[in-house]
Formats: sequence, C-alpha cells, structure tokens
Amino acid sequence: MINKLCDKIKKTNAPIVVGLDPMLSYIPEQVQKAAFDAYGETLEGAAEAIWQYNKAIVDAVHDLIPAVKPQIAMYEQFGIEGLKAFQKTVDYCREKDLVVIGDVKRGDIGSTSAAYAVGHLGKVQVGSKTYSAFNEDFATVNPYLGTDGIKPFVDVCKEEKKGLFILVKTSNPSSGEFQDQLIDGRPLYEHVAEKVAAWGEDHMGDSYSYIGAVVGATYPEVGKILRKVMPKSFILVPGYGAQGGKASDLVHYFNEDGLGAIVNSSRGIIAAYKQEKYAQFGPENFADASRQAVLDMIEDINGALQK
Amino acid sequence: MINKLCDKIKKTNAPIVVGLDPMLSYIPEQVQKAAFDAYGETLEGAAEAIWQYNKAIVDAVHDLIPAVKPQIAMYEQFGIEGLKAFQKTVDYCREKDLVVIGDVKRGDIGSTSAAYAVGHLGKVQVGSKTYSAFNEDFATVNPYLGTDGIKPFVDVCKEEKKGLFILVKTSNPSSGEFQDQLIDGRPLYEHVAEKVAAWGEDHMGDSYSYIGAVVGATYPEVGKILRKVMPKSFILVPGYGAQGGKASDLVHYFNEDGLGAIVNSSRGIIAAYKQEKYAQFGPENFADASRQAVLDMIEDINGALQK
Repeated sequence: MINKLCDKIKKTNAPIVVGLDPMLSYIPEQVQKAAFDAYGETLEGAAEAIWQYNKAIVDAVHDLIPAVKPQIAMYEQFGIEGLKAFQKTVDYCREKDLVVIGDVKRGDIGSTSAAYAVGHLGKVQVGSKTYSAFNEDFATVNPYLGTDGIKPFVDVCKEEKKGLFILVKTSNPSSGEFQDQLIDGRPLYEHVAEKVAAWGEDHMGDSYSYIGAVVGATYPEVGKILRKVMPKSFILVPGYGAQGGKASDLVHYFNEDGLGAIVNSSRGIIAAYKQEKYAQFGPENFADASRQAVLDMIEDINGALQK
Repeated sequence: MINKLCDKIKKTNAPIVVGLDPMLSYIPEQVQKAAFDAYGETLEGAAEAIWQYNKAIVDAVHDLIPAVKPQIAMYEQFGIEGLKAFQKTVDYCREKDLVVIGDVKRGDIGSTSAAYAVGHLGKVQVGSKTYSAFNEDFATVNPYLGTDGIKPFVDVCKEEKKGLFILVKTSNPSSGEFQDQLIDGRPLYEHVAEKVAAWGEDHMGDSYSYIGAVVGATYPEVGKILRKVMPKSFILVPGYGAQGGKASDLVHYFNEDGLGAIVNSSRGIIAAYKQEKYAQFGPENFADASRQAVLDMIEDINGALQK
C-alpha cells in the first residue's frame, strides 16, 4: 500500500490528501435539507447528509489526488449511523482507487491493539469465516503506550500490506506540553521518531516503510529534523492551510526524490465554498469549489517544492 | 457521576470494576452456537454472541459492583454490528444502574476531541434536535496531544456531569518506553499526573474530581507516588490478576478514606469459568463463575485494604 501511495503521488503529481472531516456546519443547506426531508432531523439524517456531501466531493476531486483521510470522530459523534457513513465513505473511496488513511488515532496494548488493528486494517475471525470491518489502507496510531501498543498494528499491517502513521509531533498549539519535553537533551518527539524509524525497518516497501509518522505543518523546524531522523518513513502532515501551515514551510518534510511526505487539508478543501476566494461557486456548487481548492493546493505545494 | 461512583463503591463495599472485554474465545460454545444458529458465522452472529455473553454476566454480578468498563476495541473489531453490541451493553448496564466507563482511549485536538466527547459522553446537535450516541458515564482519554486534546472533553464533562480517566502510567511491559523517561529529573508520567490534577481542579465533585487517571497495577511504586501527585483524582487501576498485579500492591493507590481508586479485572472475571479455580462451574454456568470471581476479588482487595 505504501508502494501504491508513492505511485499515485507520482501519477497525480500531488503529494496531498483530502481530509474528509465533515462537520454539519460545513454541509450546504440544500444537502442537509434533502437528508432531513428523507430521514428527519435524526442521527440517520445527519449520516445521510454527511454521506451525500462526501460523495459529491469525492466525485469532484478523486482524479486529482492520491488519497483521502476521513477523521472517524466526525462520524462517531453520530453513533452507529455516523459510523455507517464512515464505512460507506471508506468503501466508496476505495472503489475510486483512492488510498484511504483512517484518521482513528487508536492505541492500546496487546490483544486490544490487535482488535483495533484487525477492525480497521485486517480481518476478524468469526467461527470458520473472516470479515473486514472498516478496511482502511492506513490508520493513525498514538504511541504513548510504547512498543506493546504498536507491535500488534505492525503485525496486521505486515499480513495485509497496509500501513500506519504514528503520532510524533502533532500540529496543535499545546502539542509541546509533553512532546517537546527534553529527555537526555532531546525532545520526546525525537525519541518517538527514532522508534518509528525502528518499527518501520521491520515492514519496508520498495523505497519507503509502511510505518510512517504524523508531523504537523505548524512546526517546520521540527519537520526538518524529523525528516532526517526517519529517512524511510512517510510523513503525514496535518495543519496546512486553515491551521496556519504554509507550503514554503513544508519543503523540508520531503526527501530529494520529491516523495516522503503527504500534506493534508480538510476544511480548506471540503468547505472551500465558504471562503471568500471561492465564493463565486456558491453553496450549490460546493464540490466544484472543492475541486478548485485542490488544484490551487497542488499548485501551491508543487510551486514551493520546485523552488 | 464521580459522586455516584463514590456512593456506589461505599454501598457495595467493592472498589472494583468489571472489564467487559469479550473475546470470542472467551465465550462458551453454547452461547456462540445459539448466536451462529440464529445469524450464521457473521459479524451479526459474533455481535449477538457478545451481547448474550455480556448480558448473562451483568445479570449475575450487577448487584455486587459499582461499575463496568467495556473496552470498545473488542466490539469495534466486528465493525458496525460489534458497535451495536457495545451500545446495547452500555445501555443495559446503565439500566442496571451501573456506572459505565467507556474504555475508548480516544484523544485528538480541538473540534475532533469535541466530536469524540460529544459522541461518547455528551449530546450531538442535528438541526433543532439533540441526541446521545454512545452515552457512557466516563471515558478513558490519551494525553499525548496535551491540553488542547483534553479541554474539549472536560468541557463536555462539565456540561453533563460526567468524567474522564486520563492515561498516566499504563500497565503494559513497555509502558516505560516513553512514560518513564526523565524530564527535569522526573518521569513523564509524573508530569502528566500533574496536568491531570490541574485539569481536575476545574471540574470537582464533592470529594473527588471528575477527572481521574489510569495507573497500572503492575507498577505499585509508581502508584504510591502518583496517589500523592493527584490527591483528588480517582485512579482507575488496570492490570490486576491476569496481568500480574496483586491486591497487596494496590493499597497505596487508595486514600485514607478507602476511596480514590477502582481496580479493574476483565478476563479474570468474565472468563473465570476457564480457570482451574472455577472449573467446577463448567462452561454452562459461566456467569455463576463470574459472580464467584467477583466475590473473591472483593474479598482479596478489601482484605489487603484492611491490613
């Protein structure tokens, strides 16, 4: 799957991922209305609105991009119905041949991590049968519990040729509270990054490891260092655009081969029609606004990389 | 809800929580067979087996205990059907007046943490209506992202009078990899514990904060220290029994009022019938074996506390 991600980035010339993190407030009136007319103002109605919104955006942008990153929390808040919309979204994106990064930030120990891994990336055994539940291609994972918490995910990834992005340095303002604390003179995130590199050696693709890292766009100096600590790990970069990360900041997250990083934008793409820049599309053409925002983001990132 | 937890612990005289972490391999043959006869060897069949298993155990032990802790990964691995069984289990336990600790170990930032908080502890808005999705009483949360990741959970907890248990020192062998690293001469877990105490001040119950901590039974010396660092935080203690933690090790997790900690056992209770000690019950009386295991655990913990 890491090889597929590399191939698709080269083919699209777009080292970007669209974050499918639908908030109801992003979804245009007419989409909400149609869903509520059919199912009422219910969890099912909310899930239908999310699904129709996602589908329209995926239809409008799938040929331009290698990957999507649905954030499961945005679905999980609507309970079972929301999670059905998550599953439909994952399945639909896979049908469109997109690489699906499940932004699930799970992490536990032993058999519990194994259960998450099986549920999101692998197959679960029921009697003599096996089933894939959510079936993403990559999942994001939290490292706080150490190797015990990661190993069961890596094991499933090896079986399924799937991958992980492990939280190293997150994009939020208070990420430094624990992640930046110095241990033997170096911040915790560097220690985590070293472990990511070591875990990744155990599951290599052609040029990159299946085990990648999350490093926020909002800390470019950190990105520069971590690129060197984990030369074979792909870096998933949140925080571009709406959170303040600029394309010029992101150059050092990439390797000389032009690969090694994939930059996420969520709100900036899926709710593009709400920005003044794309206001001419109007809410009725929200998906076209998203397509234009993807084109602009690709140009922005590639422009910076070519410099 | 922290007041209710304290009251129920006093009333039952049982500072314990039963971990509802069903693996299919724990579930007696006859329960699996009945479920598979009705639904086939499907995800639905697995979910039905889990639900029937849980229900029998809850029926057998609910009068003895203050709380249960379903581990969502064990349900999530079976996808939507598994999560329906999780929801049914939560609802059923609440009907039985048990405090429900959702062991979900979620954690993200800003609006994403807010979405998890709303989905597990609060109410989600759909148009003019609001709904509770999973509706646990407490949730476990991962602190790696810092205050940004915790604050939205605390906000929802304040609204709903619900609570959290934040991972501080986990029970697994490699928990020390990051958690034990020294920062200014003190391990990371102490720094996290200080934050838990500070976050907790913001949401106090009568004697204890709604914001508690997870500290593994397998590191009793750590428990002793952390009890002092977080005097007003309840400690959820995993790792007793199957993972090796002994009752005598746990005395210092409690305060002088006999409160302040709640000890979890999962496999040791729900799969008690598989232990030699309870073999006389047989798989057909698995729930009675669980009841006896609860009684034995209460005696074991209280015996140690009285010394």
